[in-house]
Amino acid sequence: MPEQIIHTHELPNGLTVVIEPMSDVQSAAFCFLIPGGSAFDPAEHGGTAAALTDWITRGAGDLDSRDLSNALDNLGVQRNESTGLNHLAFTAATLGENVPAALSLYADIIRRPQLSDEEFEGAIAGIEQSLRAIEDEPQRKLMIELRRRCYDAPWGLPTEGSLEELARITAKSVRAHYDRCLRPNGAILGIAGCVDIQEMLALVSEAFGDWGTKPDSSMVTGPRGERIGHIHHDSTQTHIGIAYDAIEYAHPDYYKAWAAVGILSGGMSARLFTEVRERRGLCYSVSASLNSLKHEGRVLCYAGTTVERAQETFDVTLRELQRLGDGIESHELERCKARAKSSLIMQQESTTSRATSIARDWHFLKRVQTLDDIRRDIDELTVSGVLDYVHQHPARDFTVLTIGPNPLKVEEA
Amino acid sequence: MPEQIIHTHELPNGLTVVIEPMSDVQSAAFCFLIPGGSAFDPAEHGGTAAALTDWITRGAGDLDSRDLSNALDNLGVQRNESTGLNHLAFTAATLGENVPAALSLYADIIRRPQLSDEEFEGAIAGIEQSLRAIEDEPQRKLMIELRRRCYDAPWGLPTEGSLEELARITAKSVRAHYDRCLRPNGAILGIAGCVDIQEMLALVSEAFGDWGTKPDSSMVTGPRGERIGHIHHDSTQTHIGIAYDAIEYAHPDYYKAWAAVGILSGGMSARLFTEVRERRGLCYSVSASLNSLKHEGRVLCYAGTTVERAQETFDVTLRELQRLGDGIESHELERCKARAKSSLIMQQESTTSRATSIARDWHFLKRVQTLDDIRRDIDELTVSGVLDYVHQHPARDFTVLTIGPNPLKVEEA
Repeated sequence: MPEQIIHTHELPNGLTVVIEPMSDVQSAAFCFLIPGGSAFDPAEHGGTAAALTDWITRGAGDLDSRDLSNALDNLGVQRNESTGLNHLAFTAATLGENVPAALSLYADIIRRPQLSDEEFEGAIAGIEQSLRAIEDEPQRKLMIELRRRCYDAPWGLPTEGSLEELARITAKSVRAHYDRCLRPNGAILGIAGCVDIQEMLALVSEAFGDWGTKPDSSMVTGPRGERIGHIHHDSTQTHIGIAYDAIEYAHPDYYKAWAAVGILSGGMSARLFTEVRERRGLCYSVSASLNSLKHEGRVLCYAGTTVERAQETFDVTLRELQRLGDGIESHELERCKARAKSSLIMQQESTTSRATSIARDWHFLKRVQTLDDIRRDIDELTVSGVLDYVHQHPARDFTVLTIGPNPLKVEEA
Repeated sequence: MPEQIIHTHELPNGLTVVIEPMSDVQSAAFCFLIPGGSAFDPAEHGGTAAALTDWITRGAGDLDSRDLSNALDNLGVQRNESTGLNHLAFTAATLGENVPAALSLYADIIRRPQLSDEEFEGAIAGIEQSLRAIEDEPQRKLMIELRRRCYDAPWGLPTEGSLEELARITAKSVRAHYDRCLRPNGAILGIAGCVDIQEMLALVSEAFGDWGTKPDSSMVTGPRGERIGHIHHDSTQTHIGIAYDAIEYAHPDYYKAWAAVGILSGGMSARLFTEVRERRGLCYSVSASLNSLKHEGRVLCYAGTTVERAQETFDVTLRELQRLGDGIESHELERCKARAKSSLIMQQESTTSRATSIARDWHFLKRVQTLDDIRRDIDELTVSGVLDYVHQHPARDFTVLTIGPNPLKVEEA
């Protein structure tokens, strides 16, 4: 594998550009993280950042909404916009040769959005539709509501807000969010693929160098929801969500936490899959993943099953989480390592993965890990190290939420 | 871009190996298509092939279910098994250096599965859970039932069968399916990435060369379902499915059909997205895609919206489908071409995409298209050519299915 070159440059206004040129590819991708995510939504106006994320792409610079979509499609850009807690995220992938033109369109979107009244209704309607669609997506609803119960506000709040809040959001309040929150200081642009470092730096400096800084935005904090809960839903299915404390991405023990969750839920030989699904045939889907904010983390688990098997699925899943501290076989850890190494190689072959990873690394760590760094951290994992982590951060004090016709008994939690 | 080398070799028993070595990558992927898909399920035993797809990975050769999962995870294999209409499909991606060992495990799975009684119940339970979970996934249910109504049996039947049929399936009947249908003649193995052609050929010949051929399996044909239908579901949402005739992948006009659907539903500037979702804010999700069997094809459309907006969403969507024949702007086609070229380059950078594509090409075309072939076909598309296609295959005689509290008026269809 060619040596990884990762170049980081911070503009005087605080926008950080992280560039990873990749030989042997023709494509390139970039990932913009712009301050102003949903954690900064005004009080009782959840969904403000989400409305902005949609509205901001509906016309920018001299291009109206349709012309802007056309221009991006003409460049072959595969794009995605999403609202994070901290940032609005814009990712784009296309041929390396089209990146300069695409970046310049995103400079318009980010710095010169039209935010026209006539496009506002469409943006709000889209979010309203998405919120209403949750009714037919109980698994998605479960994970949204589980976050609300295991993280304090604003970190646990749904980025899309609620229908009640959406009704309060106006073009004026969203424009105010744009003016107050979106800024270069704290913004991150990750670029990976067939690009030239100097050309990218010149472009970014030209497009964003004169963007003025803004002070930190305030956020509204609040308590989390009830630890044990049930939401009634008429169905033959029960959806089970379980959360417990873990550690954040920047924590020195992060890879130990990652391995602990990997032993539970990474690959087909992991414990939850083999024990709950394969051996007992209890459910169609069961998984656990590590979720990280900047200063805290959780393990979030999901299991979906029939009403009849819900209690046993819950009990068996909880027992698997709890008994991790009883011992880990060395071959379980070795399999985690093997999967990680293979997946690192595959990530290195995808420009979109790399652009997203280097931007995320900068956000969480203020540095970028090379794949060799990660490989070394993973190689150094030992069973006793992972067990130490599990003993220091045992699976307990569970947040439990179920959606289905009947609540479950959750005494053990 | 380095020149694409695609090597095809047919073993005397009819198994075809298609190999695309890719320089500049360390990963490799393979995709096995083995005859015996759900189209060959015995009468009133829908789900037989699906049960086999699950059961077949629960122990093979000398390894029991858990040891087999462990062995694959130890090789860092990212795997997926699925039941197609024609084939069981096994895809795997890992480091190129691990491919020989992984292939040898898949030879055990395909040729020496244990199919043990004790693992059978778990396999059936998994399918039962998946079938029951459909109740909480109305969008998935809609697309399954739409296929049943726009294709004759067995092509429109759900690969997972039904709960009623599942109750009839026994270990004996699934073993009989294995014995009757799984065979080398008609099997396809696509391999792409960091591999050596001669080494792969030697391995495959060693592992599969002495696999005996079998005669063609019979299939049970039957009529499709009602053209216009509604399934009652208590919700504030309505899910709308629309299908109409198109052409198959092997048809000389395929890329014209592809462009026609791309103008409707490719990228953010496509007609359905801009007209139904962006401009009118009618729904959260709307899309159309080209679905191909070996000898016929359909356009399948989906829109999800609230009950209040369902009728208008349906009417506007149908009108967009119908008015494609009225004219296409040259810039619409140019955007389709730009998106296609960018996406071809990205596909060329993914070993999994390539392994899957070359296997699929061989199945549909009995040859493999290089990316240059496809690029040329796309370059040659003209507005008048695409319009000719649309006039020859107009959007009409729609199959319409809705899931929600109320049926819609579908006079125009």
